[in-house]
Amino acid sequence: MTAPGQMRTEYFPIPKIDENSALVRMAGSAICGTDKHMYSGQLNLGLPGAVVSFPVIPGHENLGIIEELGAKASEQMAAEGVPLQTGDRVVISADIVCGHCYYCRNIYGYPWCLNHRSYGDVITCKNPPHLFGGWAERMYILPGTFMFRVPEVLTDEEAVLTEQMAVAYGAFCRALQAPNMKEGYAPADSVVIQGAGPLGLCNAFLARMLGASKIIAIDKFEYRLKLARELCVDEIISLKDFQEPAQRMKRVVELTDDLGADLVVECTGAPNILSEGLDMLRLGGTYLIEGAFVEDAGTQVSVSRQIVAKNARIIGAAGMPFQAYSRVLKMMASFKDSIHFANAVTHRFGVDDAEQALQKSMAEDSMKVVITPKLGE
Amino acid sequence: MTAPGQMRTEYFPIPKIDENSALVRMAGSAICGTDKHMYSGQLNLGLPGAVVSFPVIPGHENLGIIEELGAKASEQMAAEGVPLQTGDRVVISADIVCGHCYYCRNIYGYPWCLNHRSYGDVITCKNPPHLFGGWAERMYILPGTFMFRVPEVLTDEEAVLTEQMAVAYGAFCRALQAPNMKEGYAPADSVVIQGAGPLGLCNAFLARMLGASKIIAIDKFEYRLKLARELCVDEIISLKDFQEPAQRMKRVVELTDDLGADLVVECTGAPNILSEGLDMLRLGGTYLIEGAFVEDAGTQVSVSRQIVAKNARIIGAAGMPFQAYSRVLKMMASFKDSIHFANAVTHRFGVDDAEQALQKSMAEDSMKVVITPKLGE
Amino acid sequence: MTAPGQMRTEYFPIPKIDENSALVRMAGSAICGTDKHMYSGQLNLGLPGAVVSFPVIPGHENLGIIEELGAKASEQMAAEGVPLQTGDRVVISADIVCGHCYYCRNIYGYPWCLNHRSYGDVITCKNPPHLFGGWAERMYILPGTFMFRVPEVLTDEEAVLTEQMAVAYGAFCRALQAPNMKEGYAPADSVVIQGAGPLGLCNAFLARMLGASKIIAIDKFEYRLKLARELCVDEIISLKDFQEPAQRMKRVVELTDDLGADLVVECTGAPNILSEGLDMLRLGGTYLIEGAFVEDAGTQVSVSRQIVAKNARIIGAAGMPFQAYSRVLKMMASFKDSIHFANAVTHRFGVDDAEQALQKSMAEDSMKVVITPKLGE
Amino acid sequence: MTAPGQMRTEYFPIPKIDENSALVRMAGSAICGTDKHMYSGQLNLGLPGAVVSFPVIPGHENLGIIEELGAKASEQMAAEGVPLQTGDRVVISADIVCGHCYYCRNIYGYPWCLNHRSYGDVITCKNPPHLFGGWAERMYILPGTFMFRVPEVLTDEEAVLTEQMAVAYGAFCRALQAPNMKEGYAPADSVVIQGAGPLGLCNAFLARMLGASKIIAIDKFEYRLKLARELCVDEIISLKDFQEPAQRMKRVVELTDDLGADLVVECTGAPNILSEGLDMLRLGGTYLIEGAFVEDAGTQVSVSRQIVAKNARIIGAAGMPFQAYSRVLKMMASFKDSIHFANAVTHRFGVDDAEQALQKSMAEDSMKVVITPKLGE
Repeated sequence: MTAPGQMRTEYFPIPKIDENSALVRMAGSAICGTDKHMYSGQLNLGLPGAVVSFPVIPGHENLGIIEELGAKASEQMAAEGVPLQTGDRVVISADIVCGHCYYCRNIYGYPWCLNHRSYGDVITCKNPPHLFGGWAERMYILPGTFMFRVPEVLTDEEAVLTEQMAVAYGAFCRALQAPNMKEGYAPADSVVIQGAGPLGLCNAFLARMLGASKIIAIDKFEYRLKLARELCVDEIISLKDFQEPAQRMKRVVELTDDLGADLVVECTGAPNILSEGLDMLRLGGTYLIEGAFVEDAGTQVSVSRQIVAKNARIIGAAGMPFQAYSRVLKMMASFKDSIHFANAVTHRFGVDDAEQALQKSMAEDSMKVVITPKLGE
Repeated sequence: MTAPGQMRTEYFPIPKIDENSALVRMAGSAICGTDKHMYSGQLNLGLPGAVVSFPVIPGHENLGIIEELGAKASEQMAAEGVPLQTGDRVVISADIVCGHCYYCRNIYGYPWCLNHRSYGDVITCKNPPHLFGGWAERMYILPGTFMFRVPEVLTDEEAVLTEQMAVAYGAFCRALQAPNMKEGYAPADSVVIQGAGPLGLCNAFLARMLGASKIIAIDKFEYRLKLARELCVDEIISLKDFQEPAQRMKRVVELTDDLGADLVVECTGAPNILSEGLDMLRLGGTYLIEGAFVEDAGTQVSVSRQIVAKNARIIGAAGMPFQAYSRVLKMMASFKDSIHFANAVTHRFGVDDAEQALQKSMAEDSMKVVITPKLGE
Repeated sequence: MTAPGQMRTEYFPIPKIDENSALVRMAGSAICGTDKHMYSGQLNLGLPGAVVSFPVIPGHENLGIIEELGAKASEQMAAEGVPLQTGDRVVISADIVCGHCYYCRNIYGYPWCLNHRSYGDVITCKNPPHLFGGWAERMYILPGTFMFRVPEVLTDEEAVLTEQMAVAYGAFCRALQAPNMKEGYAPADSVVIQGAGPLGLCNAFLARMLGASKIIAIDKFEYRLKLARELCVDEIISLKDFQEPAQRMKRVVELTDDLGADLVVECTGAPNILSEGLDMLRLGGTYLIEGAFVEDAGTQVSVSRQIVAKNARIIGAAGMPFQAYSRVLKMMASFKDSIHFANAVTHRFGVDDAEQALQKSMAEDSMKVVITPKLGE
Repeated sequence: MTAPGQMRTEYFPIPKIDENSALVRMAGSAICGTDKHMYSGQLNLGLPGAVVSFPVIPGHENLGIIEELGAKASEQMAAEGVPLQTGDRVVISADIVCGHCYYCRNIYGYPWCLNHRSYGDVITCKNPPHLFGGWAERMYILPGTFMFRVPEVLTDEEAVLTEQMAVAYGAFCRALQAPNMKEGYAPADSVVIQGAGPLGLCNAFLARMLGASKIIAIDKFEYRLKLARELCVDEIISLKDFQEPAQRMKRVVELTDDLGADLVVECTGAPNILSEGLDMLRLGGTYLIEGAFVEDAGTQVSVSRQIVAKNARIIGAAGMPFQAYSRVLKMMASFKDSIHFANAVTHRFGVDDAEQALQKSMAEDSMKVVITPKLGE
């Protein structure tokens, strides 16, 4: 991607690694909402210094096989404490962290590194070794990256969901509480998912695996609602049937014993959804905001009515502790018989068709779209 | 039960209720480990003042239909804030609380009431209206009891597990934590269940519904291990194959990436299991003790090696906040397609065969045994 | 108060109590921000059904001595589990709860009762026994109220701060966390107080007693900043010196090792302060909003920049669990040697001078203003 | 120390550092309980691989000034994200961590590194550069160590308490909870300290700074109880006056409104104190065990009565997340006006008199004993 809306295929030489880096042969790279925003020119990563540097090779939800591995990287990149090896099938962390700043030193999992860089958007492919994104045949892995072994029982199509599942895991863990105050998320809670796209669906998967008793998804696309319903959602609210926010709020209240939802999760990417989400909460409910990564001029909220009197808890969640990746991989392996994660992947494209893949990912009739290199062809 | 080891059937008149009480027609009452200890004369309820007053009608895991309901009881006994009605199918809380003592005033869910009484053991059936236990056709419900509506989708055999599931829920909620310190239980953790009887199985169910990634059950009975494996456990350790504690510990370590278990749950009822459970923990692991309700002379533990150097966390869990009942009912309703809870009930007996039922519940080839009145026969 | 801006003194007969109620001889009643909003006609209590019913006797931060006490009230109103007695010096809970609704049944401390009423604003004095507010010689105490014994070492002027301290305690407990994620409030955190009035000062007291390492207060009134500095605040930011939000944000960043504050507490009552408070947070910081009880048309916030990318946590806090009262009384008793709580009370007025007291409480040169009946005069 | 009970002064050359290491000129090193156990031959560090390798230079509670600093060490050893500089006055972490093992990768603060080494006991001084303990003029600082800048307002005698305060901080944070379940430590709780030596006193300091409402210390030495009372403890229980455990338990119950303590902290180092501590808890109370670092043959506990029926929570606490050091430094700076931390240091000795210092630290009439090099003399 050379600029918003402009993509082309380019060829780079296969780079040499050093003792601190690695080379991975890609098995798949999923398209994220931020990729769509980057393509449409609206992306706001928000973290200090995190700006897109075109040209980039997009792709930060990455799965591959370690082809070459530096001696020190084997330990440094091993998130679970067991050295990595050539041939390991791994998920690659989207972020590269410095390890020394205040946040790396003081926050569990380094999620808010002040010198944070990320594959597929922040790191340009202009300079060698170029291969800094997943929509490619190979990726060059820099020091500060973590890699996570994929359990054998998981297929590639399940494993490629890891990064987005990890976002949901990190967010839920920030909300997780015993039900004493009924504050934050507690097992058996009701959960509303605003936006039944890939991020919304991953949050629904996670809510299910954490014991949610009722999961309600809201979207404008029937295709997505139908798939979400098949895979793990209990109730759906279509914008076609419930056009006004007040109607949707009323429907959520009906579905939650006249209380409102214990937890609402924003996965639409539309900042002006805030007010509607707050109104759907019961007193003391929690609002997780995960999707809003677009430039916004600001949205309206009534502090006294919607936050204070509601005793609301609002949690903005960008990024995740790196440990979330391996935890999510374990959970998917454990639940794969009763939850068909792989069905979330509805379309696949080759690297050369990445632009077409992006278009499809923005269409009404898709869920997760994955880019798969056809190596050796 | 007129004394340990002595049971007979007796007939009492159907009592009249007042505005604060209720009458329930029993649909089922499950046999708990404490019933077995009461029968064998070893029961130690432990809470201040909680001693068995023979004769009793046993049974505190109770399910029934409200036949008569006092005007004030309709609100007072409604745990979810929606008044109860005659005809409601309900689970009945095992405990009766005063509502005024320090613990009722200051602890969420009143679980440690200083004036606590419980159906089926503490309250004698000597005095009218006599019907204070669930192995009967009807129960008289006293003020201070809570009742919980059963979702329609749940069968009686699923609903009768509620009390024991609530014990597990209450215990897990005391351990529940986000994984930042990997302390307490966090989603994706490994869980060892010591004792694959009904309580152990309910804890395994709950661990699964809270996202445990690997559940390991240990028992001496093959029948129970086999059933647990079918229903929701990932790995089993039979005392036949692993006779020594050191062998079992080694096996747990192998199954947990050479670390030890994140969480061990004691459900054997044998206090001397403490040391073995502590040795199975990883550094900083958590040990939930739920089963030990028998008189014990004390057991040995090395404070420096097994607790301090291990950075262990040990949580004793007797009772539960009353809210746990409705939460567990909702979770079972939500998971019933993928977890076959009802299969945990392996045997049913009529009220007249209660002693035979008790014997079966202590046999090698049973899991949950339920006593069902055959009304009108 | 017969309408916003209108007050007069009126005389009511001394009422008779029944077994569930009580009569208290007032020792003092402090003026709260909501009283000021009620007087100015801007009050928005926000909870369902919570609207002011004029005429009212204002006053919900109440201290007095039990003069008469119903037999059942002695137990029912005793928040700590020890029966109350005539002659006890007590703080009176501001709220009256039903005990049966969903929130009373399921939320620790009943803070969000659906049938909530409160002294001094929601309950009119039009109907007998009239005495439903603290700016009076006596108060009639209704069932559903809790009363809290005052430790002997506390003076009346310290004890009268209890309700507002309890608001702060309840709010901090919703934010309290171990520092693993540095999320929520953790001991040693930096704390910014927006608004150094009585509520802000009580929050500063509490932050100090919970181990805050740096407390920064922001206000427009020099008098308040000076007093806060003397009593327990480390740094002050005057709007006179730092006129623009951007200047104040810059100052906060300077004072917090270039990071931003771990915790910001809103105590101004001005909803449009939201954006400024969010900008003062470090990544992952927490924003407690306690003061906003006025009608507001809505304020602007950037969801992507100020909430998601900031990984902010926002907690609206109205009301408190009733247990907070006794906990705060104990803490004040414990800290009274090093924190001079009583100095927060800067002015006292008789009941007949309540309107003058209100004016003073809104003036630049006051902190907490207390109304004290001169009984027998 | 060449063997238990054997000490002598030895001279080593001043070593050269490389880019990853540092040299610190000592300002003080305090004597810890583990030093006493090491001297008496009873030390059990417990962590895997953590054994004393004689000869050692003792001393792991260290304060000094950075004399030389490797270029990479400046960032790597900076716990707060701001590079260190020559001349900084710093506290030195007792532990050296690998940064790559499972626990370093997955536990906040690396407290349980599998390749853990520690100054003053695990690392022998036999091999160059020898200077691996604080009872010396200089220390050589290895990669994997963190150093923490001391705020200017703290004196050396305050700062030298940091390591032990950090133990208490780490332990309390594992227990810290909002009071909803009254489980774990909550602000306003009652706290019993078993053992009023230096560790006990540091825990009392911390309890005070976290809002404990009543702190009770138990010891056999009058000198220590008297000092603890002067500095921050509310009530003392002397073994002279209360000789039997049952008497001490009764006294604790009296002092805690007939409930038992919310939190008991074990700081005696005697494992057989476990049973007494459990008996002092209220229902659902928490027991922090910090002091037991001696070989023990095991002690007796009744699982059903003392753990399950009591609903006790027991937390073993060895080590701390490294972030605890800087948090404790900030809190001491903030509280130094009302808590006279420095008075905890009752005796000082030169390096040559280390054995005499050890003897004094074990005597009845000492609290914290510090070893101070007399450089240039």
